[in-house]
Amino acid sequence: MAQRLMASPYQLFSLSVFTELLDVAKSTISEDLTFLRGVCEQFGLGRVETVAGAAGGVQYIPLRTPEQIRRLVDEICARLREPGRAQPGGFLHTTDVISVPSTAEAIGEAFATVFAERRPHVVLTMEVKGIPLALMTARAFSVPLVTIRRGPVTEGPSVSVNYVSGSSGLVQSMTVPLRAVPEGARVLFIDDFLRGGGTARGVHDLMRECRAEVVGIGVLVESEQPADKRIDRYLALATYRGQGAGGEAIIEPGRWLGAWLAGSR
Amino acid sequence: MAQRLMASPYQLFSLSVFTELLDVAKSTISEDLTFLRGVCEQFGLGRVETVAGAAGGVQYIPLRTPEQIRRLVDEICARLREPGRAQPGGFLHTTDVISVPSTAEAIGEAFATVFAERRPHVVLTMEVKGIPLALMTARAFSVPLVTIRRGPVTEGPSVSVNYVSGSSGLVQSMTVPLRAVPEGARVLFIDDFLRGGGTARGVHDLMRECRAEVVGIGVLVESEQPADKRIDRYLALATYRGQGAGGEAIIEPGRWLGAWLAGSR
Repeated sequence: MAQRLMASPYQLFSLSVFTELLDVAKSTISEDLTFLRGVCEQFGLGRVETVAGAAGGVQYIPLRTPEQIRRLVDEICARLREPGRAQPGGFLHTTDVISVPSTAEAIGEAFATVFAERRPHVVLTMEVKGIPLALMTARAFSVPLVTIRRGPVTEGPSVSVNYVSGSSGLVQSMTVPLRAVPEGARVLFIDDFLRGGGTARGVHDLMRECRAEVVGIGVLVESEQPADKRIDRYLALATYRGQGAGGEAIIEPGRWLGAWLAGSR
Repeated sequence: MAQRLMASPYQLFSLSVFTELLDVAKSTISEDLTFLRGVCEQFGLGRVETVAGAAGGVQYIPLRTPEQIRRLVDEICARLREPGRAQPGGFLHTTDVISVPSTAEAIGEAFATVFAERRPHVVLTMEVKGIPLALMTARAFSVPLVTIRRGPVTEGPSVSVNYVSGSSGLVQSMTVPLRAVPEGARVLFIDDFLRGGGTARGVHDLMRECRAEVVGIGVLVESEQPADKRIDRYLALATYRGQGAGGEAIIEPGRWLGAWLAGSR
C-alpha cells in the first residue's frame, strides 16, 4: 500500500482499491493508513492525506522537511566548492553532481515542496542539463515533463519564440511541440542554472504563445552576476558568487531559502 | 524500512542500520524483512535479498516480472500506434509518451531487469530524448547517469570521437567530460531510438578512449530499416516497421522480447 501511494504522488486512491487488492476490510486499511501516516511524519517521508466524501480517498504528497532541504542544499554547496568546478565565462560544472539519480530525486522533491501550492500541470525545462532535475520534479507532482529544444524539433508541428541569451547577448530560438503544453496549463519551469534570466524570460513568451501560465521558476544555482536579471521572480536553491582567490567556487544557500525555511517551520 | 530499501536499489544495508533507526531488536527486523520479501514477491515489486556474513545485510533489487514487462511494452506500442506519430525521414514521435515520469520509470526498471546481470557502474545516453529513460535506468541500478553531448561541453576537459550518423550518413562528433566515465567502468548505453546504429557504434569507440567497457545497449524502439546496422548486439523493447496504409506507425514488441520472456519464466 505504501509502495502504491508513494509511486504515484498526488494521485487519489479510493480505499476500495486497497480493500480489493489486499482482500481485507476497510477498517484494517484505515488502521494501516493511520500507522503509515505516523511513520511518514516521524521519519520526514512526506504526508499521507485522506480526503473525505464519496469522491474521496487517500493520496501521498512527497513533502520534504525544512531540515531535509537545508541539509540537501548544504551538501550540494559543499560538493560545488570542490576544486575545478568554476569554469571560464562564469559557468559552474555541476553535471556530475546532479546526474546522480538520488541527488536529482532529492532536488526534485525539494522543488516539489517549495512549489507545492502552485500545483502545476506540467514541468518544463530547457535542454540539456536541467532535464534530470525537471524529470524528478515532474515525478514528485505526477505530471508530464516537457523539454524545450534550442534547435528544430522532429516531433510534428511546433511553436517557437526568439529570446536574448543572458550569457551571450545573442538572439536564439526555443521550440516546443505544439500540443505538448495544453491551453490554460499551469507550468513550473525548472533549470540547473540561471545567469542573466534570458532563457526564463523566453519561457514566459513561449508559454504566452501556448496560452499557458508560468506559475513558478525554480533553479538549482543562480549566478550573482549580472545583478540586473531579465526576470525578477524565481527561486534558486543556491547562489554562485564567483571564484575565490584559489579559483574555487564561492557558493552559498539561496538568498530566499533562509526566509522560506523560517516561514515554513 | 521498505521506503529506505526501495529508495536505494542495490545498496546493502546492514541490519544494525534498521535496529538503530527503529530502536527494535534484530529479530523484529528479520521478521519484518521476511514479511516484506513476501509482499514484494506477491505483488511483483522486485526482490528483497539478504546477504549473509559480517559484511552482509539486506538490499532491494527492482526486478519487474516478465508479465509486467510484456504489459508495459504492449501499452507503449499501443500508444505509439496513435495517428500522427510516424514522422518524415523514418522518425517516430515518442517524446510525450516517454516524458511521463511513471512511464519513464517503468521503462527504466524494465531495462534494469533485462540487464540485471550486467551490473553496470554507469548508465550512458546520448542527448536529448533518451535522458528520461536513462536516468530512470540509472536510478534502478543506483549508479550515475552520464550524458554524451553532440556539441562542445562546458564541463572542463573532455574526450571526443567522430562517428557516422546512421540516419544522415554525415560525420559528427560526440563528447563526454574526461572524468565522467572512470577507467575500467562497466557501462550500459540506453537510448530512445536506434536506426542505423551509428550512434551506438560511436559509443563503443568513445568508451574505448575512456578505457571503459560497454556491457549492454538498450533502446526503447529500433527501426527495422536499414536492416544492415552498424552494430549487432543490442536489445530493443519495440520494433518499428514503418508506416501503414493510413500513415499510422506499424510497431510491435521487440524481436528478442518473446524469447527473453519465455526464458526468464
